[in-house]
Amino acid sequence: MKLLEKKGFIIDIDGVIARGQTPIPNAIEAVEKLREMGKRIIFVSNNSTRSRKIMMERFKNYGLKVSEDELLIATYATARLISREKRNAKVYTTGENGLKEELRLAGIRIVDYKNAEYLVVGSNRGINFEIMTKALRLALNKNVRYIAVNPDKIFPAEDGPIPGTGMIIGALYWMSGREPDVIVGKPSKVIMEDALKILKLNAEDVVVIGDQIDVDVLAGKRINATTVLVLSGVTTKENLNEKIKELGIKPDYVLKDLSEILRY
Amino acid sequence: MKLLEKKGFIIDIDGVIARGQTPIPNAIEAVEKLREMGKRIIFVSNNSTRSRKIMMERFKNYGLKVSEDELLIATYATARLISREKRNAKVYTTGENGLKEELRLAGIRIVDYKNAEYLVVGSNRGINFEIMTKALRLALNKNVRYIAVNPDKIFPAEDGPIPGTGMIIGALYWMSGREPDVIVGKPSKVIMEDALKILKLNAEDVVVIGDQIDVDVLAGKRINATTVLVLSGVTTKENLNEKIKELGIKPDYVLKDLSEILRY
Repeated sequence: MKLLEKKGFIIDIDGVIARGQTPIPNAIEAVEKLREMGKRIIFVSNNSTRSRKIMMERFKNYGLKVSEDELLIATYATARLISREKRNAKVYTTGENGLKEELRLAGIRIVDYKNAEYLVVGSNRGINFEIMTKALRLALNKNVRYIAVNPDKIFPAEDGPIPGTGMIIGALYWMSGREPDVIVGKPSKVIMEDALKILKLNAEDVVVIGDQIDVDVLAGKRINATTVLVLSGVTTKENLNEKIKELGIKPDYVLKDLSEILRY
Repeated sequence: MKLLEKKGFIIDIDGVIARGQTPIPNAIEAVEKLREMGKRIIFVSNNSTRSRKIMMERFKNYGLKVSEDELLIATYATARLISREKRNAKVYTTGENGLKEELRLAGIRIVDYKNAEYLVVGSNRGINFEIMTKALRLALNKNVRYIAVNPDKIFPAEDGPIPGTGMIIGALYWMSGREPDVIVGKPSKVIMEDALKILKLNAEDVVVIGDQIDVDVLAGKRINATTVLVLSGVTTKENLNEKIKELGIKPDYVLKDLSEILRY
C-alpha cells in the first residue's frame, strides 16, 4: 500500500511544517503537491493557546494559504467537544485569549468560576495564584466537568524547556487527586476522531504525520490509521531507535521530512 | 504518665494558638501557664511564606510575647537545613520574601536559577510562568538539590481552599517526574528533629500538639513523642472519628483546645 494512494492526510504543524516561526524546507511545497493530487489535508496541532485565526496568520508567514476548515487546533477541538456536549455551556478556563476566542466562537460562555459548569485547562503564560485557586476549587467540585486542551508536560522552547498544559494538570492532580475527565489533544482519540469527521474519511483512508512518537504516532495508532514519523522535529536520526525502544511504539514509516512522502 | 510531667512542648500555631489573625480563647493563657511551670516551649509551623520576624509580629497581636528561639517556622528550618549541608549555598527559590529573608539570614545566597545549587520550593501568592519555568529547569537538573519547605497541598482560607506549596511540588512532579529530595515541614521528621535539637530535649520528654492528624500527630509519632490533637482547628468533634479511621493514625490524647492540657 503506497502512502500516496491514501485519500487524507492529518499533519502535525510544529516539527513538520515549521519549527516555531521558521518553515521547514520543502514542507510547504510538499503540502502544495499533495493538494494538487486532490488529497484532503487537515493540520492538527496540540497548541492550547492559539486560535485558528492566529494559526492562519502563521501559515501565511510560512507562505502557505490554509482555510479554517483545514485547521484543527486543540483549542478549536475543545470548543467543538464542549458545544457537542452542551449548548451555550458556561466555562471557566485557565487559558489564554486564543482559547477563549475559540470557545466564544462556538457559543460557549466564559464565566467566573462560581458559575462554571466546565473547567477548561489550557496553558497560560500569564498563569497566577488566583487562576490556580479558581481552577482548584472547580477541580474539587465533582459536578464540574473538567476538560484539558492537551496533556503536554513540557514544551521545548528555544532557550530551554518551558511548562506545558501539564503544569496545571499536575498541580491540580497533586492538590485534588483529580485528573481531567477528557483530554482533547494528541495522543487522545478525541481530536483524531474529530479530524476524521471533518475530513469525512475513515481511518483506513488517512495517513497521520508528525514528529513525536508518543504524541502523533500514538494518536494515529489509536484510530488505526497509517502513521508516518518525520525526523524534522523532536525526533531525530540520533534518538530514533532509543525512543522507539523506550516508548514501545513503532511508526509505519519514518521519513527525513514531509517532502519525502512524495517518493512513496 | 501525665502530660504536664513532660519537659517540653512542641506546639503548632494555626488551629492551636490562633485561627488566622484571631487568637483561640484561653490558648494564650495556657501557654503562659506552661511557661510559669518552667516548661520549654517551641512553636512549630509549616508556614512557607513567613519569616520568624513576621510571625513574632503576629504573636504580639495575639497578646503573647515570643522570642526568635521559640519559633521554628518551616522557612527558618529550611534555612537551617541548607546551612548545615553547605556554607553560603547558592539557592533559587520559588518562594516569597519571608522565605528569602530566612535564607539570607542563614548566609545563603539567593541567585538566579542558572547559578543555583539548590532549588527551594515554597508557596508564592505571586507565582508566575517565569518562576515555574526556572523551577522546572532546575528540577530537570539532577545536580541541583531540591528542597520543599512543606508538603501542604491545600490551605483552608476564609473564602475557600487555596493552593499550598504542593501546587508547585505537584506541577514539577508531573512535568519532570521528580519529587523533592527533602521535605522540611511536618509531617517530615526534619523539622521535628530540629525542634528537639533547639529544645535540647529527647523525644520521650516532649509533647507534640496540633490540630491536624496527618500533619502534627503523624510528625509527633515519627519522632516517637507523645501526641495531642486539639479540636480547635481543622479537626473537629464531628469529623474526628472519620479522620482517625481514614488516616489510620490515633493521637495519644484528644483535647477540646490547648487550655485543656492544664487539667492533665
